[in-house]
Amino acid sequence: MQVESIDTLLKSSQREGEATRVQGWIRTRRDSKAGLSFLAVHDGSCFDPIQVVVESSINNYQSEVLRLTTGCAVDIEGTIKPSEGKGQSIELLATSVSVVGWVEDPDTYPMSPKRHSMEHLREHAHLRPRTNVSGAVARVRNCIAQAVHRFFHERGFNYVHTPIITASDCEGAGEMFRVSTLDQSNLPLTDKGEVDYSEDFFGEETFLTVSGQLNVESYCLALSKVYTFGPTFRAENSNTTRHLAEFWMVEPEIAFADLADCANLAEEMLKYVFRAVLDERPDDMAFFAQRIDKEAISRLENIIDNDFARINYCEAIEILENCKEKFEFPVSWGIDLASEHERYLAEKHFKKPVIVLNYPKDIKAFYMRMNDDGKTVAAMDVLAPGIGEIIGGSQREERLDKLDARMDEMDIPKEHLNWYRDLRRYGTVPHGGFGLGFDRIVSYVTGMGNIRDVIPFPRTPRNVRF
Amino acid sequence: MQVESIDTLLKSSQREGEATRVQGWIRTRRDSKAGLSFLAVHDGSCFDPIQVVVESSINNYQSEVLRLTTGCAVDIEGTIKPSEGKGQSIELLATSVSVVGWVEDPDTYPMSPKRHSMEHLREHAHLRPRTNVSGAVARVRNCIAQAVHRFFHERGFNYVHTPIITASDCEGAGEMFRVSTLDQSNLPLTDKGEVDYSEDFFGEETFLTVSGQLNVESYCLALSKVYTFGPTFRAENSNTTRHLAEFWMVEPEIAFADLADCANLAEEMLKYVFRAVLDERPDDMAFFAQRIDKEAISRLENIIDNDFARINYCEAIEILENCKEKFEFPVSWGIDLASEHERYLAEKHFKKPVIVLNYPKDIKAFYMRMNDDGKTVAAMDVLAPGIGEIIGGSQREERLDKLDARMDEMDIPKEHLNWYRDLRRYGTVPHGGFGLGFDRIVSYVTGMGNIRDVIPFPRTPRNVRF
Repeated sequence: MQVESIDTLLKSSQREGEATRVQGWIRTRRDSKAGLSFLAVHDGSCFDPIQVVVESSINNYQSEVLRLTTGCAVDIEGTIKPSEGKGQSIELLATSVSVVGWVEDPDTYPMSPKRHSMEHLREHAHLRPRTNVSGAVARVRNCIAQAVHRFFHERGFNYVHTPIITASDCEGAGEMFRVSTLDQSNLPLTDKGEVDYSEDFFGEETFLTVSGQLNVESYCLALSKVYTFGPTFRAENSNTTRHLAEFWMVEPEIAFADLADCANLAEEMLKYVFRAVLDERPDDMAFFAQRIDKEAISRLENIIDNDFARINYCEAIEILENCKEKFEFPVSWGIDLASEHERYLAEKHFKKPVIVLNYPKDIKAFYMRMNDDGKTVAAMDVLAPGIGEIIGGSQREERLDKLDARMDEMDIPKEHLNWYRDLRRYGTVPHGGFGLGFDRIVSYVTGMGNIRDVIPFPRTPRNVRF
Repeated sequence: MQVESIDTLLKSSQREGEATRVQGWIRTRRDSKAGLSFLAVHDGSCFDPIQVVVESSINNYQSEVLRLTTGCAVDIEGTIKPSEGKGQSIELLATSVSVVGWVEDPDTYPMSPKRHSMEHLREHAHLRPRTNVSGAVARVRNCIAQAVHRFFHERGFNYVHTPIITASDCEGAGEMFRVSTLDQSNLPLTDKGEVDYSEDFFGEETFLTVSGQLNVESYCLALSKVYTFGPTFRAENSNTTRHLAEFWMVEPEIAFADLADCANLAEEMLKYVFRAVLDERPDDMAFFAQRIDKEAISRLENIIDNDFARINYCEAIEILENCKEKFEFPVSWGIDLASEHERYLAEKHFKKPVIVLNYPKDIKAFYMRMNDDGKTVAAMDVLAPGIGEIIGGSQREERLDKLDARMDEMDIPKEHLNWYRDLRRYGTVPHGGFGLGFDRIVSYVTGMGNIRDVIPFPRTPRNVRF
């Protein structure tokens, strides 16, 4: 008999009496005194398991069904019935229950049917997708990723695979990991006694990328609308709930565009993605709202329903200086906004997302476009209630003389970036884009407080398990 | 005035006399003796440029329009007219031409409007997306990537981000790159005088992944249908037209599935993706068929229209032994098929894709499911005319005792893979999947002979530019 997913089965209607077949894993088994067993079976296709009623007349009832425990794999045929319990409208009355895979020693099965700490789940990251919470995270993460691709595809963007291994270490976005094939126990040395990277795989010193932006700009200046979506890396010793050494980033880049266009794109994209989550994963989101963060759904609705505020950095500083809030970090023109400042603006002052525009040049990267005031650059951050910064972007400096001046000012050697400078020598146009930390968005949407719980196998200092 | 993409403009009809605006780059300029100029303007949204007719009455005609060269960026307003030339049905009669970005020294512009060698384009990988050929590759690559995501999403698969940095070096798929933050000029050593990786960022020796398969299996055994799509790495000194040190891979994995299910999924996916390319990128594919490989389109049609053949490895060996073809590498049971063998089967014997099933265990990986004969494993390769192997996959060994026996036989230490063995201890089910080298598929679809020309910034031995 054809197998159907539990998602399809639970969404179907008017099929009482039909026979069907499901395959999945036992979440719980409950036996009634009347000589019946109730199996909750999940297959990952949706949040809910299907309830399967097994009568004792089934031939392997005593020998196998009564031995089923959480995590066992089963293949079940049955008849669709209206459910007598609350919650779901249908259940299956089993006509056969085949056990596909047992759980070795149920007493020590790490995903036993009790509430586990997030630390325990992290210790068993290979098994945690079987739980309600990690399964829901995985489906929502997938939903967001699909929505990101769909959003850009529908708008004529081209997805560009920018390189992961790079020789460029000058972007200054953070500490980098070295990539090498040199024999560490016998490193080749130059005459000066330094490591001779000309002997390395790529013939020079190489690192893992911190951003695909510089590379994707070159495609932007040919295809007009492009984006990257790939892994990026920071070798920072940050053991926080917000940092990963390896994380995924979405970076769109648009040509013939200024900072306002970038801000509009960011707002449109966030709303599109959040709407997709609410439309496509109501089951998982209801779980998050019930068990993880009661504002999980209303927070997204609030963002979808409101225009984002837009203010200049100067105005943001004024608001912060004049408010009654006591901040840990003092506020004055020139500072980089701290998380407490960002959250005050979004949560207390505007009570909705706010895009802060035109930051002081001294706290921003060399490639951001100099404003006419000579003091600020066309940078932006999107701040959202409950998290602070979720997107950072800028219009890029498209004028070669201004770019060169900034590189000189910041001591950035030009020789590695002559290709990047070429983009300004040949048919340059105003352009810009932004970066969205994908894992942070998943954390924000689900309300999961620790970013290690929204990526399948987190990489953090001293942790590279699985 | 609202800007529209050249793709939208060229696809629209019955708009003669309407005003519109486009932004893009000059591909060519031609001046007629009648005092008119014809500009071919592209914006990357489709293969074709739009022809813009500029009359000398435009105010900057002498001062700017007549100085436009290939690569200059322009912003043009004009009126839609029926085209008098051949090819396209419409053109624009300019009402204004603004120059956004000039080309510095047109004589040395690397993308001047002549035919360039692929080597020249590779030397200027940051500018090559502006050319017909690299632009078409970029759009087709995007089309294939979007189709891959859509294919799996429509079928209820969850996209899983498997880790890039890994401590596992035992899969045996190839040489690996080391990832480290240790100071190479002052490496910490253990008492034994070996490099002390406990001092490294992750506290142990780490590498770039060669495959996401083992990790994605753990999600498969919870969510039933999953896939990865991410970068993978091989530190092999292969300077060929088929190898990259950094390439993208698609790896689906399905639960409650045997080898036949994996083969069916592979066939269905390839047909879906190829159909998407023919439907969505007829312009670029017509170019490839005309200029790169005259069979570019017919090859895909042939695959879409035919059922793939399926044969056992044993039968493949018999066919090869009994055919009249002279091979460089001799054929006998037990060999790994060489490219010449694979191509003979697909191109000459079957004249369509063929899936070879059940290979000798000694030439395959430890995780592949042992067949009852004790000599072969449930592995498969999909061979296609014109390329040979495009997909490799297998049913995985889901029985712990058999898996352990294979690991022992192949001297694979178990301690790093206890988590993988756990998947067989707790609710194991038959499952399998395959890997699709994404860049090779782009190469196959476009007919581009060198894989370095289908990825934006190729990484190969001694080459990590841009």
